Amino acid sequence: MGYVLKDCDYAISWINDELRIIKNATVVIEDGLIAGIGEGAYSRGFENIDCKDHILMPGLVNAHTHTPMSLFRGFFDDAELPLWLSKIWNVERELNHNIVSAASELSIIEMIMSGTTAFTDQYFYPQATAEVVLKYGLRAALGPPFMDTMRDPKQVENELRNFASEYASSQLIRPIINVHSVYTVGRDTLLRIKELSDELNLPIHIHASETRDEVYEIKSKHGVFPVEYLNALGLISSNLQLVHLGWVTNWELGIIAKAGAKVIHAPTSNMKLATAGHFPMRELMDMGVIIGIGTDGPASNNSLDMFREMKMAVLLQRHSYWDVGIKAHHVFRAATINGYTILGLRGGCLDRGCVADVVLLDSKNPQLQPLRTDNLLSNIVYSVDGSSVDLVLVNGRLIYEKSRDYYALRERAVRLGKEINEFIGRFLP
Amino acid sequence: MGYVLKDCDYAISWINDELRIIKNATVVIEDGLIAGIGEGAYSRGFENIDCKDHILMPGLVNAHTHTPMSLFRGFFDDAELPLWLSKIWNVERELNHNIVSAASELSIIEMIMSGTTAFTDQYFYPQATAEVVLKYGLRAALGPPFMDTMRDPKQVENELRNFASEYASSQLIRPIINVHSVYTVGRDTLLRIKELSDELNLPIHIHASETRDEVYEIKSKHGVFPVEYLNALGLISSNLQLVHLGWVTNWELGIIAKAGAKVIHAPTSNMKLATAGHFPMRELMDMGVIIGIGTDGPASNNSLDMFREMKMAVLLQRHSYWDVGIKAHHVFRAATINGYTILGLRGGCLDRGCVADVVLLDSKNPQLQPLRTDNLLSNIVYSVDGSSVDLVLVNGRLIYEKSRDYYALRERAVRLGKEINEFIGRFLP
Repeated sequence: MGYVLKDCDYAISWINDELRIIKNATVVIEDGLIAGIGEGAYSRGFENIDCKDHILMPGLVNAHTHTPMSLFRGFFDDAELPLWLSKIWNVERELNHNIVSAASELSIIEMIMSGTTAFTDQYFYPQATAEVVLKYGLRAALGPPFMDTMRDPKQVENELRNFASEYASSQLIRPIINVHSVYTVGRDTLLRIKELSDELNLPIHIHASETRDEVYEIKSKHGVFPVEYLNALGLISSNLQLVHLGWVTNWELGIIAKAGAKVIHAPTSNMKLATAGHFPMRELMDMGVIIGIGTDGPASNNSLDMFREMKMAVLLQRHSYWDVGIKAHHVFRAATINGYTILGLRGGCLDRGCVADVVLLDSKNPQLQPLRTDNLLSNIVYSVDGSSVDLVLVNGRLIYEKSRDYYALRERAVRLGKEINEFIGRFLP
Repeated sequence: MGYVLKDCDYAISWINDELRIIKNATVVIEDGLIAGIGEGAYSRGFENIDCKDHILMPGLVNAHTHTPMSLFRGFFDDAELPLWLSKIWNVERELNHNIVSAASELSIIEMIMSGTTAFTDQYFYPQATAEVVLKYGLRAALGPPFMDTMRDPKQVENELRNFASEYASSQLIRPIINVHSVYTVGRDTLLRIKELSDELNLPIHIHASETRDEVYEIKSKHGVFPVEYLNALGLISSNLQLVHLGWVTNWELGIIAKAGAKVIHAPTSNMKLATAGHFPMRELMDMGVIIGIGTDGPASNNSLDMFREMKMAVLLQRHSYWDVGIKAHHVFRAATINGYTILGLRGGCLDRGCVADVVLLDSKNPQLQPLRTDNLLSNIVYSVDGSSVDLVLVNGRLIYEKSRDYYALRERAVRLGKEINEFIGRFLP
């Protein structure tokens, strides 16, 4: 079973690891994978989608977020960090499966509408989020978070084992070991996490060196910087994903590169929370480290639009380096092919066998004009936002079609927003 | 003649200089002005607009752009600055009224769709842009640019006199004296500009201290910094608008504040062009300086969405100051009431007599959920983009209604894009 995405005005994607732009492209999808470009034999009996007036591009991977935190969108926003955090923690002590489900669903609706096909999530009740992910048909990496300050690590380990075995053969859900941070998880827990990662062969996803405070605390306590500390405990490997790295030393970069660990940049969140610092994107790229991009959660961004996040990554890097060395194609790679690599998938590409996660943009959207081969990438990264997304396919299935789904999803989002407001009412100012 | 904007879910605006949020608001517009809030006597015979499921807010003022530069959207984008500029200048030597008109129209369509009701523009052929502005019915401050390196200042002065007299009594077009910069305009021209500003009582709009290069050049040549130089020539007054100020000294801020000059921040453009530096927003606010926000032109942003620009201003300031002192309400003020003040109008407010330039957002847009009084401002500044704009009124006239106008404007934008591509074809890589 498959689709023929017929006569797209343009297709922009990675082919044989090169960014290619093809005019009047037809793309064939079979059994959830890219089968080829051009019509030929594959189109027999497949459903045709007329892609005239559309641009085909890879789906975007949000490599770090906390989807249920739409619960906190605009909640005590703009308060100083300690007050904001304490208000959020008050609510988090009262969470339940239903409210996490509602908040996840709201975020997932927003992500699909803006062309995100896969995301990595860190939050409580991942089971609730997983159910919504399967209902909507996109991809997610999920798992219960280790955070000793909030939860008994033994209990988290049990949940993780159950979660990992339930979704071991899922095509859409990828279990991961979520770790909040080196300052909220003890040394013994970190050592246990390392064993679990080896035993279950699961990646570890952790916030690291996000704030000056955190770096100062670890250095004071352990005499080394956070990445050095993780390295001493054996956690730095190709199975590790480090998020933020705004306050990382240059010698820590060498440790990351040598081990083949992955890193994730969340520029908007870093700026909004005023963590300052500098994510050394150029140095990491030069060392061959695979970099993804994430929006972080709706409480600290507050958007989930990966088009906006790609642009933000370029802007922040240029502001920090005082030059234009980071370009549109770097962040387009980070948000597509690299995002899939971090998920452990071959995706973001149009080679035969890449996962068929693609997005169709309305090529007549005014934000995209004037449109040509030479400015297509630029228009996608710097000009459009997610509102030009018309169709989304994940794993070869059509999961969003604006003309068919928009109004129903909008009504659903409003209903979910009301559920959230009922839950959070008693915590409001 | 007027409108009754009936039963808006929320109205958010400045009333008596305070930011107010009113639930179930009805706003009455009469003869292009706000007549009042609440129904009462004003609704007799006025046309009702049902604003259920909508949020009423002030129209956004883009206080610095170059609308015809949609011509250069994505054109040699990401090239190093000198190459990019030389490629643009090659084209600019060949401009004509028609192509400036087409490119202005494309930008104006995008601006209206994203809730911009007024803008200040600096580009060649302002007459072409003015005609489009009047056709679409928004507001603009316009005038031929002084730039001695490109044009004879005598000729610019003649054009300015003609332009100013033609639009002297226009409700929508406000003539201004556009000056490119202190490094492209000679001392004699600057002195003449000062005389013209006094004689014609027109504001002066100038790029200042945008790059390190510019500051270095002026300091080397004249022994003083750019704002000091302008001050020595008598140009710093309440009639002056300084754009960028990324490399301004703290003693120059005192000069600006004392004179009551206005300043405009264009964060995205500064970051994209890697000019680095720091726009001292906090210090300027503390001194009582009126600050506006601009997207800059579509060649250096490349979006014209003022919702995105408000957010960017908060983010960049927080990143620079390492704290959350700059908040949503600061940039909301900058983009609304301050923008109108810079234009010389009482607007951005819901007091009786404020100009009736208002925008209605779709309150059911998923980006706005969950929605409450306490997070409404946050959601507007940090979460939505221009795509949630449903209606735009300027000067009391309905100039954009998404359900009625979107598809026609989209087709028009595509046609304008094609015109641009035909013109620019021979300059492409």
